[in-house]
Amino acid sequence: MFAPSKAHPKEMREKIRTGEWQDPTAGCSDGYVQANLVVLPKPLAYDFLLFCHRNPKPCPLLEVTDPGDAEPKTAAPSADLRTDLPRYRVYRDGKLEQEVTDLLQVWRADLVGFLLGCSFTFDVALRRAGVPVRHLEEGKNVSMYMTNQSCQPAGGFTGPLVVSMRPIPAHLIPRAVEVTARFPLSHGAPVHVGEPEVIGIGDLGRPHFGDAVSIRSGEIPVFWACGVTPQAVAMHAKPELMITHAPGHMFITDLPEEELTHSLA
Amino acid sequence: MFAPSKAHPKEMREKIRTGEWQDPTAGCSDGYVQANLVVLPKPLAYDFLLFCHRNPKPCPLLEVTDPGDAEPKTAAPSADLRTDLPRYRVYRDGKLEQEVTDLLQVWRADLVGFLLGCSFTFDVALRRAGVPVRHLEEGKNVSMYMTNQSCQPAGGFTGPLVVSMRPIPAHLIPRAVEVTARFPLSHGAPVHVGEPEVIGIGDLGRPHFGDAVSIRSGEIPVFWACGVTPQAVAMHAKPELMITHAPGHMFITDLPEEELTHSLA
Repeated sequence: MFAPSKAHPKEMREKIRTGEWQDPTAGCSDGYVQANLVVLPKPLAYDFLLFCHRNPKPCPLLEVTDPGDAEPKTAAPSADLRTDLPRYRVYRDGKLEQEVTDLLQVWRADLVGFLLGCSFTFDVALRRAGVPVRHLEEGKNVSMYMTNQSCQPAGGFTGPLVVSMRPIPAHLIPRAVEVTARFPLSHGAPVHVGEPEVIGIGDLGRPHFGDAVSIRSGEIPVFWACGVTPQAVAMHAKPELMITHAPGHMFITDLPEEELTHSLA
Repeated sequence: MFAPSKAHPKEMREKIRTGEWQDPTAGCSDGYVQANLVVLPKPLAYDFLLFCHRNPKPCPLLEVTDPGDAEPKTAAPSADLRTDLPRYRVYRDGKLEQEVTDLLQVWRADLVGFLLGCSFTFDVALRRAGVPVRHLEEGKNVSMYMTNQSCQPAGGFTGPLVVSMRPIPAHLIPRAVEVTARFPLSHGAPVHVGEPEVIGIGDLGRPHFGDAVSIRSGEIPVFWACGVTPQAVAMHAKPELMITHAPGHMFITDLPEEELTHSLA
């Protein structure tokens, strides 16, 4: 187990770049937005960008880099997406090839980086608003499920919506919706409340990704669109090359969380 | 002069398709979202889509059609972008070639349609909230100005932000901000309040597009990002082919205005 670092994002990225920090980033640089990373060759970038536009709840797009340029100029000027995440996964033709701690050997002039909002931001916001976040309480990964809901396809990118689930006491559900709706770039308001069967989830005790968490009496399962969706969909399209962050090893941006509650530009 | 039609969007589009309606669409199908249209060949679509993503206030993207497919499946299922706008402009290499009432002769299999939110929606919302909308009161087009603010470029698409201006009584400025902030897909909150020189506007009486309107004592000029921006920027890139709606002759969607106040998907 590791203790989250309170370092400023710039300092954290420096530690990550030099290899001093190789752990997951959950809870690190509290108050700043963390992001999922998906890297694809330019020929696939249009369809993926369009997929994100058509499916903004699972794919809240923070920034897209220019081909070959690893600097996310808006989210973290002077950062380098090739070195500033603790761990990456490299997929070829849809199969995991290796996990690496930098992309210096793998990077190409035609690669485009997509930074997508992640739920770390709204988990913190929920907790601050007095809404319990069970997987954090239990020291687990959030429960995630494939649903029977199809995303809006774009070119070769197609597949089901993946959701994360948090059990919420019934009287706090309106508050949970209000709080997360303020963060559209962190998946926003839930997509479904209660009745898991309706969206094709048979057994909450057996999530498709992450860990099962306990659901107490008087709690209702609430479902949010999940950032695993675009990765699952991209992998399904079997791109010749795709790079992502390793689970939990996110990119830490310079954007204060509050930035996500009003329009970005 | 023409009287706005109260017909339902489906009926309006039918009238437009058959040639029965050839006038501007301002005030028509009250309560439904109208949209700007930009059509570009697929090879330019990635950069334009990215430009819209990077500049969401001037370019609030409602929908992007698949190449060659003229049906906006989300905004108006079964509609046809080639026939359902009253008037189009066709540009070749950045120069206006012709105005036409349908695109049946011009349409190609590689064309992608972009529907962008327009300010008709928030003008109506402002008026309903008791905020005067001067250009509507005076029966004019809104005043629009080039600014000294650069948009975030994307590939070949680059250029200044164009803004529209509405004079608002000082005590109503907070309300004008609140009301329009609810419509991020209709340009959202203003980008600037007062002090036109700061954004490079020397003379409010001489707008670069549209008409000058009277500014009364106690009123402050308030500036919103304007949908002319993406058209101006696209034209500047001199695409071999670009098609837009003719000014004021918009696409009427099936989306109730209220749809733009919460997340779309």
